[in-house]
Amino acid sequence: MVLRVGVVGGGQLARMMIAPAVELGIELRVLAEEPGMSASLAATAVGDYHHADVVLAFAREVDVITFDHEHVPQDVLAALVEAGVAVHPGPHALRFAQDKLEMRARLAELGMPQPDWAAVSDAGELDDFLAAHGGRGIVKTPRGGYDGKGVRVVNSGVEADDWFAALAEDARGGSLLAEELVEFSRELAQQVARRPSGQTRAYPLVETVQRGGVCAEVLAPAPHATDRLVEVAAELGIAIANGLDVVGMLAVELFQTIDDRILVNELAMRPHNSGHWTQDGATTSQFEQHLRAVLDLPLGDTAPTQPWSVMVNILGGPAEGALEERFAPAMVDQPSAKIHTYGKAPRPGRKVGHVTVAGHDLDDVAYRARAAAAFFTD
Amino acid sequence: MVLRVGVVGGGQLARMMIAPAVELGIELRVLAEEPGMSASLAATAVGDYHHADVVLAFAREVDVITFDHEHVPQDVLAALVEAGVAVHPGPHALRFAQDKLEMRARLAELGMPQPDWAAVSDAGELDDFLAAHGGRGIVKTPRGGYDGKGVRVVNSGVEADDWFAALAEDARGGSLLAEELVEFSRELAQQVARRPSGQTRAYPLVETVQRGGVCAEVLAPAPHATDRLVEVAAELGIAIANGLDVVGMLAVELFQTIDDRILVNELAMRPHNSGHWTQDGATTSQFEQHLRAVLDLPLGDTAPTQPWSVMVNILGGPAEGALEERFAPAMVDQPSAKIHTYGKAPRPGRKVGHVTVAGHDLDDVAYRARAAAAFFTD
Repeated sequence: MVLRVGVVGGGQLARMMIAPAVELGIELRVLAEEPGMSASLAATAVGDYHHADVVLAFAREVDVITFDHEHVPQDVLAALVEAGVAVHPGPHALRFAQDKLEMRARLAELGMPQPDWAAVSDAGELDDFLAAHGGRGIVKTPRGGYDGKGVRVVNSGVEADDWFAALAEDARGGSLLAEELVEFSRELAQQVARRPSGQTRAYPLVETVQRGGVCAEVLAPAPHATDRLVEVAAELGIAIANGLDVVGMLAVELFQTIDDRILVNELAMRPHNSGHWTQDGATTSQFEQHLRAVLDLPLGDTAPTQPWSVMVNILGGPAEGALEERFAPAMVDQPSAKIHTYGKAPRPGRKVGHVTVAGHDLDDVAYRARAAAAFFTD
Repeated sequence: MVLRVGVVGGGQLARMMIAPAVELGIELRVLAEEPGMSASLAATAVGDYHHADVVLAFAREVDVITFDHEHVPQDVLAALVEAGVAVHPGPHALRFAQDKLEMRARLAELGMPQPDWAAVSDAGELDDFLAAHGGRGIVKTPRGGYDGKGVRVVNSGVEADDWFAALAEDARGGSLLAEELVEFSRELAQQVARRPSGQTRAYPLVETVQRGGVCAEVLAPAPHATDRLVEVAAELGIAIANGLDVVGMLAVELFQTIDDRILVNELAMRPHNSGHWTQDGATTSQFEQHLRAVLDLPLGDTAPTQPWSVMVNILGGPAEGALEERFAPAMVDQPSAKIHTYGKAPRPGRKVGHVTVAGHDLDDVAYRARAAAAFFTD
């Protein structure tokens, strides 16, 4: 009666489910896009997740289907559900992670705090939005963006003309998402796990530091967060998980505004970069928790095991040579650093690994994590 | 330039190397005795490790050979070394873990504290030893014993007649090991990691609780241990690792005598049951440390991440049904418990998994670990 979880997508999030699956005793099967991906050790199939027959064949051998990413098309997801496959998170939840306009509309219905926003279908509508918000704003393609891609700060509607033109050629038509430029003091992330039966558990609120639109560091828990802020963020995360019927891990990326409100920036319905610290700093890692949640097993304790954890991404990798050549100098310099690599070839800006350090003093922990990570990116 | 470690043996110790190998980014390859073993996810070959050609073929694809157990014959190990394969621990070290008489003789040369012992080749010699040690003693087969097998408390030489008869039929001949019956207050274990370049790191001294000759629980660190005891044990572990030129993890099983000396009971040159708590309670788990050591990478921090960890073995498994059926009740009752299962079929007395809990209060931690483990063995 081995429990079998099927993961669509062979990236590093699927890879990082391998360790907890092996330890707990769950069979993890991965449908990878191509051979040799990050999660190749657990890859039992290689195929294109855009094809329902490929995913259906893969799903036949598992108890539940979950995801390394949110890109599986709704028609493929619908075919799985139609065939009686347990899919977590389900298509009705995933659509809010797949389409930022749908997300904004649904969060508005739920009364969640978010930046001012509008669906804009041409440069004129965007200009109107910008005029009403101080002459500047953010414009986003509703679908397919990640790590800063598909996001642009604009001063004028014409600056999104290429995207409007692309929309006009897209059979699905549609609009772009315009958002006010929020004055924030920092970015935060709230993770929540939720089971099909409704049980939820919130992780500690963390601070995320972005550089060039990509997560560079995570400080856990978020420093200088008031009890009230922590409580409000956890309640908000749980309300969104319940409101959208998310099953598995949910990450809510947040702005903390200069007047100390929190506003929802983005959602991710899977393990998330903001939770990698949990592998080494929380009782139950987000990867184990995701497996438990999608299998409808009781959720694990989300408490930190040490007062502070700092996660630093390895972006791009070494200018010369392989990541592995940096193990020795990094390890001798920082014996407390937990080094994670994803089996991906270094390439500018690419997330190829991360380092976490946990301990009692935030400054010391952050120093050690940054020092260890620096060995991999010079 | 992926680093590749080959493990001979497909049991749970090889299995538990998978998680740190995947996280760090090391390729783990396992030569399993048969298909479907604990470490089958990483098994790239199935074959009999008694045959040099099988192990040599396996070794060709890796950077270093290490072990899930100590049973690989010396002639096979010699063939590997002869062929230029890096073997850690090496045959010259492993012989002391393979033969308890050789171990006793070598530890005596090194001046290590151990029980009185003698090599006895017939019942008369055993009687003489017993007479000199209060009329009772332990007799052990020098090779092949584990978890209480090959160990017997005797009051008379004739009680080992079957083993003497077996020796007489063994072409290698030889003797049994007689040991004094030590009056101990408890059993302890000291783990040490050592690299080929000589770097060593000691883990915290732990208390091991045996039932029926099998490890039932481990308390980490050992409660009520004086600073002096902790220091002496660490120095002893390092001295043995250096003296025997062990590379990888070394476990030294110890008696703490009623007059507060420590005596060496057994040695294991691999990750060891007494160190399973490190997966959830130390900065660097013994499995990651073993991989780092055999690859001659700098060793990781061995400090506990929380004040106390308690590991409870799951012995035998449930009387009815599969282990996985107990996940839900165990997890709902003990959300802080880290549950590990080995993919082995339940069978009376068999180690099929373990549970670890870490935290601030020893009694509470021990209670939670025992409570969670109990769900798997009723």
